[in-house]
Amino acid sequence: MAYTLALDAMGGDHGPREIIPAAFRALERHEGLQLLLAGREDALKALCAREPAALRARARVLHAPEVVEMGEAPSSALRRKKQSSMRVALNQVKEGRAQACVSAGNTGALMAISRYLLKTLPGIDRPAICSAMPGIEGHTYILDLGANVDSAPEQLFQFAVMGSALSNAVEGIAAPKVGLLNVGAEENKGNDRVKKAASLLSGSRHLHYIGFVEGNDIYSGRVDVIICDGFVGNIVLKASEGVAEFITHHARAEFGKTLYGKLAAAISMPVLKSLQKQTDPRRHNGASLLGLRGIVIKSHGSADRLSFAHAIEEAIREVKQNVPERITAHLARHLGKR
Amino acid sequence: MAYTLALDAMGGDHGPREIIPAAFRALERHEGLQLLLAGREDALKALCAREPAALRARARVLHAPEVVEMGEAPSSALRRKKQSSMRVALNQVKEGRAQACVSAGNTGALMAISRYLLKTLPGIDRPAICSAMPGIEGHTYILDLGANVDSAPEQLFQFAVMGSALSNAVEGIAAPKVGLLNVGAEENKGNDRVKKAASLLSGSRHLHYIGFVEGNDIYSGRVDVIICDGFVGNIVLKASEGVAEFITHHARAEFGKTLYGKLAAAISMPVLKSLQKQTDPRRHNGASLLGLRGIVIKSHGSADRLSFAHAIEEAIREVKQNVPERITAHLARHLGKR
Repeated sequence: MAYTLALDAMGGDHGPREIIPAAFRALERHEGLQLLLAGREDALKALCAREPAALRARARVLHAPEVVEMGEAPSSALRRKKQSSMRVALNQVKEGRAQACVSAGNTGALMAISRYLLKTLPGIDRPAICSAMPGIEGHTYILDLGANVDSAPEQLFQFAVMGSALSNAVEGIAAPKVGLLNVGAEENKGNDRVKKAASLLSGSRHLHYIGFVEGNDIYSGRVDVIICDGFVGNIVLKASEGVAEFITHHARAEFGKTLYGKLAAAISMPVLKSLQKQTDPRRHNGASLLGLRGIVIKSHGSADRLSFAHAIEEAIREVKQNVPERITAHLARHLGKR
Repeated sequence: MAYTLALDAMGGDHGPREIIPAAFRALERHEGLQLLLAGREDALKALCAREPAALRARARVLHAPEVVEMGEAPSSALRRKKQSSMRVALNQVKEGRAQACVSAGNTGALMAISRYLLKTLPGIDRPAICSAMPGIEGHTYILDLGANVDSAPEQLFQFAVMGSALSNAVEGIAAPKVGLLNVGAEENKGNDRVKKAASLLSGSRHLHYIGFVEGNDIYSGRVDVIICDGFVGNIVLKASEGVAEFITHHARAEFGKTLYGKLAAAISMPVLKSLQKQTDPRRHNGASLLGLRGIVIKSHGSADRLSFAHAIEEAIREVKQNVPERITAHLARHLGKR
C-alpha cells in the first residue's frame, strides 16, 4: 500500500533537527511511505543530505518560508501565516496529495488551520483531540484533551462516537467500552452537562456505554474510551505529566543522595531503564485531531526524534484504517437511529 | 493549650480498627489533646481497652448507634441518620464541646451534615474541600476538590480567599501565591468562567494572585494555592492517584520479573522505602472543609491508622491557628474593599 504523509518539519521546540531524523526512520520502516516535508528549503535539504540516499527518493521538500510560533494566537496564524510550514503541510491533505499531516507545532493554530482548510465531518460540530493513555491493563483513548473549553452534551456524545470509531479502527476492538469522566460513578453525581450527556449516551444502541468513570480509571486500562470536556482533559493530562515528573524527581534525588544509593541505582539500572521504557510518555506521542475531513496528528511540542517517530506511526495506522471514513460511517449509524 | 477534637470513629473503609489506634497515637503526641470518640459504644470501648490506661482518661466514648454508609445519598444521611457517628461528632463542634471534627466517612454526607449543623461563614456561599498536594519544591493547597460540581466566578474568588487564609495560617506564608487552574497560562485561554474569575482575582488588592496556572503546576510546588472548580479538582486528584498507582504497578512488575531484578530491589530497598515515604499520599491525608463555622477535616476513606493520624494532625494545626476566624478576617478585608 502506497501512501503519503505531509510533515510540518518546522513545528515544535526542536524543529527539523529532530523531525527530519524521525522522518527518515519512518521511511526506513515503511516501504510504501512517501513524505512531503514542509519548511525552510535550505535547512531541510541540508538535514536530508545527511540521511541515506536510497531513502531520499521518497522524501520531497516543500518550501514554506514562514513558521507558526508556539505562543502565537491561532487567529493570527490562520490569517497572517499563509506560507507557514504548518499550513503548507495541511494543504497537502486538503488537495489530496497527502493522506495525513503530522505537526509538533502550536496546538491551537493547528486546530484552527485544520478546521479552516479541511472542515469538519458531517454531523460533527467541533473536532476533538484524542490520545491513547497507558494503563495498567492496556491503554485508553481519552478525548477531548483541549480542543474545546466548553462542550455541550451533544458534543460529548459526538466525542464518544469518534473515540469509539478510533478504538475500533486502530485497536480492532469490536465494541469499545466508553466511559464518561465524572466525580463519581453513581448516577446522581456530577454537573448538569455530564448528566445530560449520560442520558444521550445511554440512549444509544450503537455505543457500548458503561456509565460514569472516575479520574483513576484513565490509568487502569479497564475502559477503552473516556469522554470529557477539553477543559478537564487538558488539565488532567498536564497534571498527570506533573505527577510523573514529581515521582521521577524524588527517585533521582533519593538514589543520588548517598553513595549507597548511587550503587543501588547502578545495580538497578537495567530494571530502571526497562521501567522508564514501560512508562515513557514518548511512546504514546501522537494525538489525533478527530472529526476533520482528513487525518491530522499532533505531536507533543517537546518531542524528540523517538517521540516524533511515534506520532508518524500513529498517522500511518490511521491512514491504513481510513479513520475519517470510519468515523463518518459510525456517525451515520448513530445519528440515524439514536 | 487544651483543646478537644471529635472523631467519627465509625467512618471510612476500616472504621474503628484503624481510627482508635490513630486516636491514641495522637493522645500520646499531644498532651493538651482531649478526644470525643463517636460510634458504637461496645465496639469502641473494647478497642480503647487495648490502649494505655494513662491515655484513656483523655478519650471519652459518645454512643452513636447509626453509621452513614459510604455509598449513601447525602440527603438520606442528613434526614434519616440523626444518631450517626458522623452527626454526633459534628454536633460536638456545633455545641462548642469540640473545636474540630475528623471523619473518614462519606464525603457528600459529611459536607451536607456539616453545612446543616455548622452553617457557612459570612460571605461564603458554599464550602470547599482543600488539601495540600506534595510538590517538587514544597507543597500546594488546592481547592475545590469536589464539594461543588459547578462554581460561579464569585465562588472561585471566595475559594482563593479561603485557601490564602489557610496557607497563611498553617504555613505561615505572609502573601501566599494564588493561581487559577486553566488550560494555558495566556490571558485569552480558558472558558468564560475562569476568565471572569481571573478578572475578579486580578482586581483584588489583598490577594497575591499570579494568574493562570496549568495542571503540571500542581506538583511543581511553585504556587502556594491553586483554585479550581470541584468537578475539575476531584477528577485531577483521582487521576493523579491513578498515575502513581500505574507507576508503582510497573515498578513492582519490573523489579519482580527476573532474579536479577529481585536482587536489585533488595539492594535498593532502603532507597525505595525512603522514596515511598517521600511520595506517600498518606502523609498528606486530611482535607479541610473550608468555609464552615467550625473545623471539619475529611480523611481519605481508605485511611489506615498512619494516614488517619495525619488527618488528626491537620485538625490540630487548624485548631491552634484558629483557621475559621482567620478566614472570616480575610473575607472581611477582601469583601470590604475588593
